[in-house]
Amino acid sequence: MPTIAIDAMGGDFAPDEVVKGIAQLSLETDIQCLLVGDESHIQRILNDCTYDPERISIHHARDAIGMGEDPKAAVRAKRDASILVAAHRVATGDADALVTAGNTGAAMLACAQHFTVIPGVRTAALASVYPRQTEYPEQDGLALLLDVGATVHCDATELVQFALMGNAYARRISKISSPRVALLNMGSEPTTGGEVLAHAYRRLRTVPGLNFIGNIEGNDLAKGKADVIICEGLLGHVALKMLEGLAELVVDLAGTAAREHWRWKLGFMMLATSVGRLRDLTDYAAYGGAPVLGFEQLLITAHGRSSARAIKNAVKVAAKAVRDGVTGEIAAAIGQL
Amino acid sequence: MPTIAIDAMGGDFAPDEVVKGIAQLSLETDIQCLLVGDESHIQRILNDCTYDPERISIHHARDAIGMGEDPKAAVRAKRDASILVAAHRVATGDADALVTAGNTGAAMLACAQHFTVIPGVRTAALASVYPRQTEYPEQDGLALLLDVGATVHCDATELVQFALMGNAYARRISKISSPRVALLNMGSEPTTGGEVLAHAYRRLRTVPGLNFIGNIEGNDLAKGKADVIICEGLLGHVALKMLEGLAELVVDLAGTAAREHWRWKLGFMMLATSVGRLRDLTDYAAYGGAPVLGFEQLLITAHGRSSARAIKNAVKVAAKAVRDGVTGEIAAAIGQL
Repeated sequence: MPTIAIDAMGGDFAPDEVVKGIAQLSLETDIQCLLVGDESHIQRILNDCTYDPERISIHHARDAIGMGEDPKAAVRAKRDASILVAAHRVATGDADALVTAGNTGAAMLACAQHFTVIPGVRTAALASVYPRQTEYPEQDGLALLLDVGATVHCDATELVQFALMGNAYARRISKISSPRVALLNMGSEPTTGGEVLAHAYRRLRTVPGLNFIGNIEGNDLAKGKADVIICEGLLGHVALKMLEGLAELVVDLAGTAAREHWRWKLGFMMLATSVGRLRDLTDYAAYGGAPVLGFEQLLITAHGRSSARAIKNAVKVAAKAVRDGVTGEIAAAIGQL
Repeated sequence: MPTIAIDAMGGDFAPDEVVKGIAQLSLETDIQCLLVGDESHIQRILNDCTYDPERISIHHARDAIGMGEDPKAAVRAKRDASILVAAHRVATGDADALVTAGNTGAAMLACAQHFTVIPGVRTAALASVYPRQTEYPEQDGLALLLDVGATVHCDATELVQFALMGNAYARRISKISSPRVALLNMGSEPTTGGEVLAHAYRRLRTVPGLNFIGNIEGNDLAKGKADVIICEGLLGHVALKMLEGLAELVVDLAGTAAREHWRWKLGFMMLATSVGRLRDLTDYAAYGGAPVLGFEQLLITAHGRSSARAIKNAVKVAAKAVRDGVTGEIAAAIGQL
């Protein structure tokens, strides 16, 4: 059974929700959890929970990096921050993967500091998993978008590597044997979107075993057209934030409806199925978290607003990725390039 | 009264909806309309309408460029296409501005071929007007996003010019005296998003009279934070298509609801107000169209699916832009840079 290190102090509702999630998990699976953070605080929360002490250990870290802190400055100033200590424990082999719901920038820097880049990988990518419509019954309800902010701009080689890494992750985690991989672009023609995208397109078409379906446009992101969508970080970050913005809008609407008018409330009840489909977009708890790809060790970042259930699912995804050899598959794919 | 040239053959429902829209307009305003396209076809449609013949003239053009045609190839092959002839009529001074609901790429090429670039402007921009939430009662319900596809990548000077052009347009058309101008980026810090965006940020902060509010992220696009949002074409195109994709999703949902279940139908009736707000996103007819900025002559592109009402509104916007001296204001702003 894999051991997963968890940054107990990361996230809007940390450490309470993080520790509660791990306590629940300890009763459901064989996963070994290493909680990193303020030991006495963690123990106090555990004391109020039912949990299996055989499956949980605690590693003390004095400091914690807040959600709003500048990542660079915080990582420099707080050498004993939980995210840094947790990354170090993974790097030394005491744990197999890392999960955090905390400051994403700080988590990326912690990886850069302690993890080992897979040989041949030019730059790590932050991937995001998001729900979208499906086109056929067996299709996974989640798509993988990368990079969403580890980079700003990319060259063609980096985009091709992102495609291979995303493909390997989707094959292992979503169990789609041949994920549909696409470039996010401003048109469908192979030469659209400037030299970098055109070059990436040409190269992706020739990668053996990759199901490259070409370019997709912004309006295709919410559809089931592609399973793995590749872009530079600036573009991916804007797209991801727009998807989140839509989710907020729907929650706002539902909230207003429930609070203000009985007619709206009734209307929403009647629309349960269809609005539910939209509202699923906001349910960060249901899907496990977003992987950072390109290191020999795996980091799964959960949403900052993660509840106990979201944390639990993120750790399950991390354990699954370890068991299924995701980083090995990525290394093999990059090695073949 | 300004004379507006209209590409009668451009759009999914052209020439019927275009000509009907112009016929209606002729009874409502003093705007002179020059319909460019297949004369006998246009006249046949007019014969079925009530219209004021004093306000409408027809200029024959043998050819038309279809929505799905490759713009470059079509513009080369069809020299007598309605959009090219119409652009030429504007360039020679027979009309003051151009409106089309047709192939946007072909329209941009027609401008490049016939229009005059405003002195100092590095590259023209395609702007898009989209509805979003408002933050205060007097705020315009529409925001302006540019560039959405005339360029791929931009340098800092081009982004600064887009800001000035968009600012001038919003000041004149939306009558916001000091529109809030923002850069679309992956974070709020001035140095975020790479050298080009950081450089543009520094320069925008120093432009006198420009209400530059800094960077906004993808989730801010649907809010009322900024009135004029600046980005390179690749980013703007993806963002615009995502906004359109959201609109499609809502229409899909409403369509399914109306067709399939009486409960959904009832639910939607009860939700009329709130869903209506979302559904407004799809009402291309209500807002006039997207301007191409940077030429001494003005082009307003209406959505391909434009109805008669949408065409009418696009022509009204074009006439307003002419009367209010939008291109003069842009030239003055660029000249001061």
